[in-house]
Amino acid sequence: MSDVSSKKLHADIQACFASMRATNPLVHCITNYVAMNISANVLLAAGASPAMVHSPEESGEFAAIASSLTVNIGTLSPHWIEGMKNAANAANEAGKPWVLDPVAHFATSLRREAAADLMALKPTIVRGNASEIMALAGEASSGQGVDAGDEVAAAEGAARALAKQHDCVVAVTGEIDFVCDANREARIAGGSALMSQITAMGCSLTTLVGAFAAVEKDAFLATAASLALFAEAGTWTAQTAKGPGSFAWQFLDQLTALQPEDISADRVVA
Amino acid sequence: MSDVSSKKLHADIQACFASMRATNPLVHCITNYVAMNISANVLLAAGASPAMVHSPEESGEFAAIASSLTVNIGTLSPHWIEGMKNAANAANEAGKPWVLDPVAHFATSLRREAAADLMALKPTIVRGNASEIMALAGEASSGQGVDAGDEVAAAEGAARALAKQHDCVVAVTGEIDFVCDANREARIAGGSALMSQITAMGCSLTTLVGAFAAVEKDAFLATAASLALFAEAGTWTAQTAKGPGSFAWQFLDQLTALQPEDISADRVVA
Amino acid sequence: MSDVSSKKLHADIQACFASMRATNPLVHCITNYVAMNISANVLLAAGASPAMVHSPEESGEFAAIASSLTVNIGTLSPHWIEGMKNAANAANEAGKPWVLDPVAHFATSLRREAAADLMALKPTIVRGNASEIMALAGEASSGQGVDAGDEVAAAEGAARALAKQHDCVVAVTGEIDFVCDANREARIAGGSALMSQITAMGCSLTTLVGAFAAVEKDAFLATAASLALFAEAGTWTAQTAKGPGSFAWQFLDQLTALQPEDISADRVVA
Repeated sequence: MSDVSSKKLHADIQACFASMRATNPLVHCITNYVAMNISANVLLAAGASPAMVHSPEESGEFAAIASSLTVNIGTLSPHWIEGMKNAANAANEAGKPWVLDPVAHFATSLRREAAADLMALKPTIVRGNASEIMALAGEASSGQGVDAGDEVAAAEGAARALAKQHDCVVAVTGEIDFVCDANREARIAGGSALMSQITAMGCSLTTLVGAFAAVEKDAFLATAASLALFAEAGTWTAQTAKGPGSFAWQFLDQLTALQPEDISADRVVA
Repeated sequence: MSDVSSKKLHADIQACFASMRATNPLVHCITNYVAMNISANVLLAAGASPAMVHSPEESGEFAAIASSLTVNIGTLSPHWIEGMKNAANAANEAGKPWVLDPVAHFATSLRREAAADLMALKPTIVRGNASEIMALAGEASSGQGVDAGDEVAAAEGAARALAKQHDCVVAVTGEIDFVCDANREARIAGGSALMSQITAMGCSLTTLVGAFAAVEKDAFLATAASLALFAEAGTWTAQTAKGPGSFAWQFLDQLTALQPEDISADRVVA
Repeated sequence: MSDVSSKKLHADIQACFASMRATNPLVHCITNYVAMNISANVLLAAGASPAMVHSPEESGEFAAIASSLTVNIGTLSPHWIEGMKNAANAANEAGKPWVLDPVAHFATSLRREAAADLMALKPTIVRGNASEIMALAGEASSGQGVDAGDEVAAAEGAARALAKQHDCVVAVTGEIDFVCDANREARIAGGSALMSQITAMGCSLTTLVGAFAAVEKDAFLATAASLALFAEAGTWTAQTAKGPGSFAWQFLDQLTALQPEDISADRVVA
């Protein structure tokens, strides 16, 4: 990315954050049991309003009310998969953006099929770790459980291929995040190694992507902005946290305190 | 409320808290996935013993063992609704008090029906935010998701009507809480604006209402006492918390440290 | 336990912790909704990799991939029980160790049957509080909900009987933990009374037992080592925590910071 376009992206990210916080969007989350509480708190701290509604009997109805939808397959069952599909279909019909987090989708048949079925419902944005994105593009990965076994850089080709094939934005998160759509790409830096030692940080980032997508029609920019806010809060928190326990709550305080002008130009890597 | 009755209510609240902590009641909670952990920790910190038992195959059996029941419809599915009904019926048969938290019941058909069915099972106490209580009384509200879109004061009439119609105690919580039954009403002040930025604080308060109702037959007093304890802990925590992250854990420390005599007379608004 | 064998056990515990952290085992957890987040964070802090996979449609497939399995019956439903059984059977077939936590199994018929069915699937290790272990051995206990109503010492006979009958390791945790198999026994001291005021600490310890069992074939040693690490982290945390709220996050920081040589000889009670 040229210096000029980095500067523009940085300015756009700040404006996007200001807009999200001013709007307080209602984000419909279907996420795993581990991630629900931290995701709701991340959304509240950032300035959005979370709602967890998973059951197929109401998920479609609610997706049409909310400003965006996020779907995470971390803890699956057939009933929940049905709820995810109903919600994704309803979001599509209502013209609302939706984000998919294909947690460890390579691990079992149930997950592989759920991820494939959900990809077919055309998510606006897909966010995963390197192993998940590589496997989703049909590449070999070294992932086993929910933690990434591969580096972000190794997944860039897979991300570009997925973005073109499915006409969506793809974000690969790790030490330096990579985000792309069919025509553009960017890298977002910051955060802390401690973030991978706290469960569901990636899952909560996915719900934050949904908050930005709710207010910004350019899904590439919305994704970059959410990654930058998360990285900024993580960078600040790393200065005071002494371990994953202190990091978790200090991160929420930082996320609440951050203002759009605090998003550093260093987040956008040229 | 006159100064005399405010003084009496304050003294009764302190005594009620002392009694609850001395008794360590077993509180049966059927609550949403987001709220379970924080609710259990709030109950333990206050001096009660939580138990999360939701499945219809055992919820009725367990409700008869526990000292009180609390039901929260935050994350619903048909199987859970059946479990809630079985538990409410069993609590009624065993003469145990039960508390209903009709989270965002106006949002979907599934929720509207579940809330109506549960109201028909005669909860001892209903606790909600202003939007939820107004909608439950059939009034127009501006609620969309789980956050209140209306002020407590706007819901007082709805609370009084509900209390009379269903012969129950109704609590509307917000900046200043309002509690009433068919004949009495009170306002409880305190807490912090940060409490609405932490997910499931209201849900955990509902389980605390259950702890007080387990030991105090006067459900109006039990509710007022739980609101006062929550507000007192929130008021203290607000002096040191720097954001929602630090508030959450400092609140648990405060709740544990508080003694009955620490509940300030300022909690009861004359 | 003689001084000689205490010294040997202490050295073995340190080596076992070093081995676990170097291996970063993938631990398959089927645990209750309240415990999922804290359990995942405890495993990450200790050096293991957690994965929550509960549904019968995939739990067997995943159990064969993971290094060990832990099953906790805290929040039950028929669908989850089926998932637990599938996972336990698959772990047995794949020769992977598995740990059972029979939370409040005496409270309802559903729990009693689930616990009996799971015991018949031959867990490698059973961990519970005194009331749970006594009831599992057919003794009278004073347990009602999830908190222990009995002292660890009162459950030693029950633990020995269970260990012999089922040819497994049994751990009874409390102020001083007791662990035994058919031939050996040990007591592990440390921790803090605050740990019983934080929900799901025992449940998260069960998942930590699974992490050690994944790397150490001697299940008695693996169990003792996990209890010692938990007690060591609790002992350190107790020096700075001011209540259950601060304890919870400081415990995660301590668990992360602890090195094998930090496990004190005082943990093993002669």
